[in-house]
Order: sequence, then structure tokens, then C-alpha cells
Amino acid sequence: MAHDPQNADRGERALIRAMARHAQNLPAAPLPVPFGDDMAAVPADGPLLWTVDTVTDGVDFDAARHDMTAIGRKAMAVNLSDCAAMAAVPVAALCSLLLPESTAQPDALALWKAADECGRAFGAPIVGGDVNSWPGRLAITITVAARPDGEHAPVLRRGARPGDRLAVTGRLGGSILGRHMTFEPRVRLARELNAGLRVHAMIDISDGLAVDLWHLLDASGCGAVIAEEELEQAVHDDARTLSQRTGRRSRDHALGDGEDFELLVALDPADERAAIDRFGLLPLGWFVDQAGLRLRSRDGELEEVPRLGWEHLR
Amino acid sequence: MAHDPQNADRGERALIRAMARHAQNLPAAPLPVPFGDDMAAVPADGPLLWTVDTVTDGVDFDAARHDMTAIGRKAMAVNLSDCAAMAAVPVAALCSLLLPESTAQPDALALWKAADECGRAFGAPIVGGDVNSWPGRLAITITVAARPDGEHAPVLRRGARPGDRLAVTGRLGGSILGRHMTFEPRVRLARELNAGLRVHAMIDISDGLAVDLWHLLDASGCGAVIAEEELEQAVHDDARTLSQRTGRRSRDHALGDGEDFELLVALDPADERAAIDRFGLLPLGWFVDQAGLRLRSRDGELEEVPRLGWEHLR
Repeated sequence: MAHDPQNADRGERALIRAMARHAQNLPAAPLPVPFGDDMAAVPADGPLLWTVDTVTDGVDFDAARHDMTAIGRKAMAVNLSDCAAMAAVPVAALCSLLLPESTAQPDALALWKAADECGRAFGAPIVGGDVNSWPGRLAITITVAARPDGEHAPVLRRGARPGDRLAVTGRLGGSILGRHMTFEPRVRLARELNAGLRVHAMIDISDGLAVDLWHLLDASGCGAVIAEEELEQAVHDDARTLSQRTGRRSRDHALGDGEDFELLVALDPADERAAIDRFGLLPLGWFVDQAGLRLRSRDGELEEVPRLGWEHLR
Repeated sequence: MAHDPQNADRGERALIRAMARHAQNLPAAPLPVPFGDDMAAVPADGPLLWTVDTVTDGVDFDAARHDMTAIGRKAMAVNLSDCAAMAAVPVAALCSLLLPESTAQPDALALWKAADECGRAFGAPIVGGDVNSWPGRLAITITVAARPDGEHAPVLRRGARPGDRLAVTGRLGGSILGRHMTFEPRVRLARELNAGLRVHAMIDISDGLAVDLWHLLDASGCGAVIAEEELEQAVHDDARTLSQRTGRRSRDHALGDGEDFELLVALDPADERAAIDRFGLLPLGWFVDQAGLRLRSRDGELEEVPRLGWEHLR
């Protein structure tokens, strides 16, 4: 596309200039690389952790309904949730925008600023990125780098052991009613848990409790039993509201709905009381030897829980 | 989307399992984090550089015409070209796939493997990523991390000085005839230049010689004069072929076409001979005090060169 000097303030360069102005209050870069150069600097004094997530119009948000600020915030928050899942400390982010050709420059900038603001609140300002327009829908890809939390090793998915307590950091289900855009990534709580308790494994609930718990089980090579009465204590009010519309049980929304972005935690059972009393965790059940995932009803019957929840690609 | 056990080998998890199998021959991770966990590890013993680029169907490639291998390779190579522009050493990559809902799993895997293979050839295997399907077109976002090259500082855009020689690492123009999919990122040459010569500034030509040279000038606060007879020596045969179709001068294709992915270099003038004789660089002109970009014809006339080339967002 040839440049039209009449539109000099509406184009990509103008957007990047506005981003660069916004970046002027960035913390000092660890290498003397100005914003907008071919690469950006990320601080490190040892191995880092990093994660990437793309959110898209029509799947993760609705560009016709959600404003750019909410969309930008979510694009960042889903990545911060991955940092939380490892109890890692976010340090910097990159953002790549895929903008419909009709996007107005101030809208693109508002999205970027909202993502950056969310990142900064957790220690990860946006230090660079990429701007593209195309004949498709809005999509945002953010990469976040994080450092291990001092002497506390990152928490993996694979550490759950039979006998561990299964718990969750908040109530589940019905996030589609709004929480999926506004959730708080559990970065700080995850670090506190990792520092204060014997956390054996962790994952954030993006695809749904059942799906993500299956990921923990696959990685750890054990099974789990969810206690019905505990699950019911962990059902979010939104799941109950949604249940009235869908006719499905609210606990099935808690099991199957995606985008809660709470953390599923495998804990040394001796730490159960501390987890509940000091950190407000909600118990859900136990990890067991026998492979698979089962729900134990109040009367002690066991029911298999299939892998429910969102999955890309069929 | 609820999981259909009948389709267990066609879905996202199956794709990620195939990716994990492919990742089994990864170099040992710098932290004990298995492939497919919430974050991936990236080696570092000091500050890193990182870059992100999204390539999209309809802009950077044509999914109906280019095969998945060529698309995956390009998605990685554009990022490696950014590493080259700073003379940085790639160490690892993340890949986020945005797949049309109709994408077959083997095609997605072929794309991923081609991107990974290209990354590995330059030291940056794909260590993690994200898989999404959506009701839109194919887009691939890759993030590459790189380390500074030992005692040789990363080369920035802002270091060009009046009197510096302007040179380029290869011939320009007409890349749309095919080279834009098959170019070789100048990672190794960039490191050799940075180690062997006094390189003051560098940028890779993604948007077109004129646009990217303007970026160097803006960052460095000086101007440049391109010598017509030198530019003509740097015109690619593809630009001549294309010129016969478009009726535009081949040198205008060299100036304005995007996606050459050669490096524009600002050199200490004392290193001109070494740059040409030892490294095969093609001289293009000089950096000057006077702001702006001009083309000097054989008979000494100066013509202003506007900012030509591709720009996203109007």
C-alpha cells in the first residue's frame, strides 16, 4: 500500500508514534534499545518463562459488543493467568495486533493502552509489538515473559500425587455472563500459595474445570475424585443464573464452562486448613491412584466425568 | 465446544500431542518445564531481546496458493530477520496459530513443523505456543527471543551518522515473484558484519527500501542520499521482470517493493572496501547532515524520495 501523505496521522506509523509516546514512561530497559526498534529488550538474570495467547473476535470476545478497553484488558489478562498457573512473576509483554482494515487509529490505541495498563498492574508493561491490518476480524496476540519467583520453583502441571488435596481459588461457572472479560489473574495469590504452602501442581481454568483438571491428571499420571458437596460450594452465582436459562444443572456449568481463570491446585493434604483459612481456597476433592476423573455424590456413588469444555479444532 | 470422543485424534489435544512428540528432540530446557505446560522456558543469563510478527492470509501469503510448509517457514523467517537487523542470536520461539475452522490437523502440524525447522536452523526451536480455531482466515504469530552476541552490542536503528556509508546485503525489488516466501534471514551475515566492521545502524527491509531507510533516518536524526548508479547495481532481476509487467522502472520496484528482507547497513566509511570485498555488501549511497532522503542521478541532480512502500492502516 503506497503511503498517502495526506493521511500521515492516520496510518501505522502514527499509531506506532502514539504507542512510543505512551511507552515513554516505561521502566528503564535492561539494554539500551529504544521502543520501536527491530526487537525489544526483556530483563533477565537467568532463564525466563514465557507464554503466548491469541484472543479473537467471535470466540473470546465480540467486537460488536465489547469495547476496545475490555478487549485489550482481556488479551493481556489471559496471559497473566498463565503466569499465575506457574506462580511466575511477569516482567514484560509484547503485543501483536491484527486489525480489520476499518479500524480507527484511536480504537487501536485504546486497546493497546488497556492491555498495557493491565500488564503494568502485574509488572509486565508492553515493550514492543507488531501492527497489522487485514481483510479479516480483530485478533490480538500477547506474549508475556516472567521470571521464576526467587527460590520458589515454578509450579508445573505434573506434580500432583495421590492423596493430594484438590482445591480452587474461586467459584466456577457462568463466566460467559461477564466475568470472562473482567476476571482478575491470580498472579499474586499464586505466588503467596507457592511461598506459603506445599503446592504440588497448578493450572489455570481456561477451557473448563473438567478439561483443565484432565490436563493436570494426564501430566501427573494419577486420577482425581471431585466431591459433589464440595463442588456445589464452589458453584458461582453466575452458574446458577445461567442454569435457569439453559436448564442444565449449575454444577455442570461449574464443571464444563470455560474462562473462569481461577487456579486448580494440588496441595499437600497437611496444608488443607491453611489453604482454606489463610488463602480462601475452596476444596473440591482429592487426587487418587486410579486413573480418570470421577464425581462422588453425597451418597457415595461414583460417576465418570468426561472431558467437557471448550476445545479448539475438532 | 464439547469434546467428541469419536474425534479424539482430530482435535486440538491431538494436535498438541503431535507437537509434543515433535518437541521430544528439543535441546534440554533451561528450567525443568515440560512442553505443553502453562509456560515454556527460555534460556538466558542476562537481558534478552525479543520480537513478534504476525503473518496473515491475504496479506503476507495466499493460503489458496502457498503450501503450509512455505507459510510456516515464512512466519518464522520474518522474525529471524528482525533478529538479524540487531545482529542478535536467536535462542527460542513461541508460535500461536489462528486456524480457520476447516483446517485439517495434519496441515496445522505441517505448518508448525516447517516453522520449527526454520527456527532450529538458526538456533531458535519452537518451545511452546497456542492453538486456536476461529471463523476467520489463517494467521500465524511467532515470537522469537535472542541474546546479544557476546561483547558485540545489538545494532540499533539510531546509530547512523552523517558521512556513514549506506549499503545493503543483497539485491532488491520484485520479491512478490517468489522471494518473499523463500528469503534467507541474514542472521549469520549480520553477526559477521557486527563482529568484523564498524556497523553504526541496521534495519531489515520488510516494508520497502524507501520506507525502512526512512525509519533509520528518523531514528538517527540525519538524512541520506542514494546514488542512482549504485541503486541500479542493486536492482534484483525479479524487479526487472516485474517492471516489464507493470511498466514501472525497475529501480522504483527496488525502492518501493516490500519483503526483500535484506539488511540496510550504516557503516563507518573506512570500512567500505571490507564490506564490499569481504562481505559482498552492495553500496547504495551515504548518510548526510541534511534531513530527508534524496536520489542523486548520474548527472548530479537531486530528487526527493517520498516514503514509499507498504504501510498497514491508512
